[in-house]
Amino acid sequence: MELNQALEKLREIEKKQIAYSHATGLIYYDGVTAAPRGTAANRGETLAILSEVEYGLSTGPEISEVVETLKAHLDELDPTTRRIVELKDKTLRELRKIPVEEYVAYSRLTNEAQEVWHRAKEENDYASFAPYIDKLVAANKRFASLIAPEKDPYDYMLDQYEEGLTREKCEAFFGELRRELVPLVKKVIAAPQVDDSLNKKLYPIPLQEKLSDKLMEMLCMDRDHSTIATTEHPFTINFTKYDVRITTHYHEDMFLSSLYSVVHEGGHALYELGIGDDIAYTCLGTGVSMGVHESQSRFYENIIGRSEAFSEKLFPVLAELFPEQTAGYTAHDLYLAANKSEPSLIRTEADELTYAMHIMVRYEAEKALFEGRATSADLPKLWNDLYKEYLGIDVPDDRQGVLQDSHWSGGSFGYFPSYAIGSAYGAQILSKMEEEFDVFEAVRSGEMAKINAWLEERIWKYGCLYKPGELMERVFGAPFDTKYFVDYLKKKYAAIYGIEA
Amino acid sequence: MELNQALEKLREIEKKQIAYSHATGLIYYDGVTAAPRGTAANRGETLAILSEVEYGLSTGPEISEVVETLKAHLDELDPTTRRIVELKDKTLRELRKIPVEEYVAYSRLTNEAQEVWHRAKEENDYASFAPYIDKLVAANKRFASLIAPEKDPYDYMLDQYEEGLTREKCEAFFGELRRELVPLVKKVIAAPQVDDSLNKKLYPIPLQEKLSDKLMEMLCMDRDHSTIATTEHPFTINFTKYDVRITTHYHEDMFLSSLYSVVHEGGHALYELGIGDDIAYTCLGTGVSMGVHESQSRFYENIIGRSEAFSEKLFPVLAELFPEQTAGYTAHDLYLAANKSEPSLIRTEADELTYAMHIMVRYEAEKALFEGRATSADLPKLWNDLYKEYLGIDVPDDRQGVLQDSHWSGGSFGYFPSYAIGSAYGAQILSKMEEEFDVFEAVRSGEMAKINAWLEERIWKYGCLYKPGELMERVFGAPFDTKYFVDYLKKKYAAIYGIEA
Repeated sequence: MELNQALEKLREIEKKQIAYSHATGLIYYDGVTAAPRGTAANRGETLAILSEVEYGLSTGPEISEVVETLKAHLDELDPTTRRIVELKDKTLRELRKIPVEEYVAYSRLTNEAQEVWHRAKEENDYASFAPYIDKLVAANKRFASLIAPEKDPYDYMLDQYEEGLTREKCEAFFGELRRELVPLVKKVIAAPQVDDSLNKKLYPIPLQEKLSDKLMEMLCMDRDHSTIATTEHPFTINFTKYDVRITTHYHEDMFLSSLYSVVHEGGHALYELGIGDDIAYTCLGTGVSMGVHESQSRFYENIIGRSEAFSEKLFPVLAELFPEQTAGYTAHDLYLAANKSEPSLIRTEADELTYAMHIMVRYEAEKALFEGRATSADLPKLWNDLYKEYLGIDVPDDRQGVLQDSHWSGGSFGYFPSYAIGSAYGAQILSKMEEEFDVFEAVRSGEMAKINAWLEERIWKYGCLYKPGELMERVFGAPFDTKYFVDYLKKKYAAIYGIEA
Repeated sequence: MELNQALEKLREIEKKQIAYSHATGLIYYDGVTAAPRGTAANRGETLAILSEVEYGLSTGPEISEVVETLKAHLDELDPTTRRIVELKDKTLRELRKIPVEEYVAYSRLTNEAQEVWHRAKEENDYASFAPYIDKLVAANKRFASLIAPEKDPYDYMLDQYEEGLTREKCEAFFGELRRELVPLVKKVIAAPQVDDSLNKKLYPIPLQEKLSDKLMEMLCMDRDHSTIATTEHPFTINFTKYDVRITTHYHEDMFLSSLYSVVHEGGHALYELGIGDDIAYTCLGTGVSMGVHESQSRFYENIIGRSEAFSEKLFPVLAELFPEQTAGYTAHDLYLAANKSEPSLIRTEADELTYAMHIMVRYEAEKALFEGRATSADLPKLWNDLYKEYLGIDVPDDRQGVLQDSHWSGGSFGYFPSYAIGSAYGAQILSKMEEEFDVFEAVRSGEMAKINAWLEERIWKYGCLYKPGELMERVFGAPFDTKYFVDYLKKKYAAIYGIEA
């Protein structure tokens, strides 16, 4: 195959891959937003057929030949194409090492595990799900040993979600968080609690829907290419940078829940919307990693969204939509309610400060499973002990404990750390951004576009061109450093709770 | 290829076709229900890629070989498989006769024509759209001459939407309608008008949405496999019999518009939901023709939905949702409002009686185009003259005249007659059903399921197993006869307007 022919074929295969991922992504999205209840089996039939084609596009002889040809011409390629070839080659090499029957068996296992987990959570029946944890850990360790025998299996898992992340880096990161934040959490618990009665009133859902539109407007999201729907669990999905969907879940008696979901998912969506047009229809045309993605979503949700400046900008909007509920309150009350910190059982409802503790519990548990220090039988006790240690609370049942998250049932071990890493990236991004302009003054004066433009120029437009760690170092102009995150949290919560951090 | 191998391959290809049509159908549905405004180009990219695969599945060497093999064993096949082979063979033969470049050029032409038509309608600019009409007629006549040189080209067109329908049958049918209904319309116009003030009040859309759910419940639609969304123009789409979507469009000041859209689309959906499980994943697993489909939708909309019995059943539901708007009105007032008949300009808003006149205008216009008696230049005058003749009204502009429907811009000539034929099928179905039980007593007593079961047993479950005309004759136990439709309309409107019909 000639170089030019290979390049053309590569473009063609990439466009096909994007088209199939559009179709399968939409079928998923439709399933959780619009489809009738009883249509899962039908979706399964369609997805099975389309996924097989997708699999062939990523692993078949056609892409193999293209990649082999391009690898022989690496130094003639521009950096974008080189990176595409690198990623495609990685996929090919990895999948080739897994026997097809094991691949198929694993996909059946995760399907089954997810179903069992759903029921187990509903019925608070950990025992039914436990065997799947052991099977999933074993299967993932087996894949790790086939694909990267030189690596520690948990390192391999971490690398799936944050290319380049290792257990060593996690140890340093979480070690510092543990040392610095566990005492801070204890001080916050001991301090008088802030008033969040604003969040306890009833906010009719149709008006909350209007609020979501206002929030998307405040974030300067391009509504020609993004939209919002309602789902059980909020998420963001992008078919390409030209079509990005966020979702939220409304609670009438807890309006801040959806409000910060929208800002969080809005951050994910802004990242995808800001991908460079030049890479839109390639495999680089999406956010580079879970960690960098969370750095954007949690930056918008917490650093921007839970700032005093944002509360000031938001309060009048809220007061106009909900005059009765907000009567007698101020922007500062909104700020306090949005930052109420208290140990809680459920990760997805945790505040900005205690969130990292929830992640640390999961990190320790995963590590123990992958190091063989624990099996599914030990997991609930391990989980509950860690919640006691980090957050000082007792876990009343597994439904609110070890069964709460879906990740493990899908085989996603090593995913959780990226949430905390992302939060920490965000704090260092803020510090860098503030060297150039007054970020919160921009929020106050409605110049959110200035913040977006800064991030687009340094992060979004590149998609997957750089590895996540490399991309972040380019942004920081320095290595990643946990102290920005720790300092940010200390300063913020010391002020809110009137404590010394 | 062995027979068994061919049968297995056929099943596999059919499943793939259903999967692709699920994906492309969903992309279309998403585009008109949920997608952000600026995503059409992205959808276009994906659809181009998936449609090419679909085209290959219908015309490629694989399906050719399967069909050839099965044709050699026709008498060993069960009737279902025989019909599948017949339909697949028809597609293959037709597509083979059209040179690929002409097929591609035509698909480009319709895309362009649809876009131009949209703008032309918006701007009331017939001149910009006119050349496309001539091109589309020419292209369709060309295809007709390639595929069925022995046939009259308009007969070929009719057969596309209602297999077996011919101009001769249309002439007899529309001739009788013209003779019988034009005088009836004139008498209705001269009679004192009924009161439809109930439909002029304001009905908040969120409550109309609740009404839609109630209507779907009244129709006994299986909500596990069907749902409703909002679109500019109401339609029904089925991915398989297990996933059927209807849509509606709400007008605050005209609640009957959405109400009868829901019942109409509900009829389409019931048909699809009632397909036999045994043919669900084959090309037989959908409604057999436009005419039979309209016979179901218009049966539910008009014969059932606009009956006195249905009004009685519906009025309490309406009164509960809209106590203020319905105060002082009765079920009979609802019946009258739903059956107000008056000559109007827009087909989709026409009442049951004048609807057929709108179709006759289009039938005459199409015929003139295909017979070469008219070109696009003559069309507006021809249109306006026919509206004057059949409905006694003047067409003020092309937007409300010849530009109102999308069908021709998509090359769909010969489609309109099936709407009227469907209405007439419906009346004969009613007469047959009444031989077996009191249909309106069933409506009154909430036994809609009895009506559904009757239709399911005789029509729905067969999908495309029989040709539409054959299927209808099986139901009627006699040839199709226009008199049932004419008698039904005469009786109904004579009573409502106190005239002699």
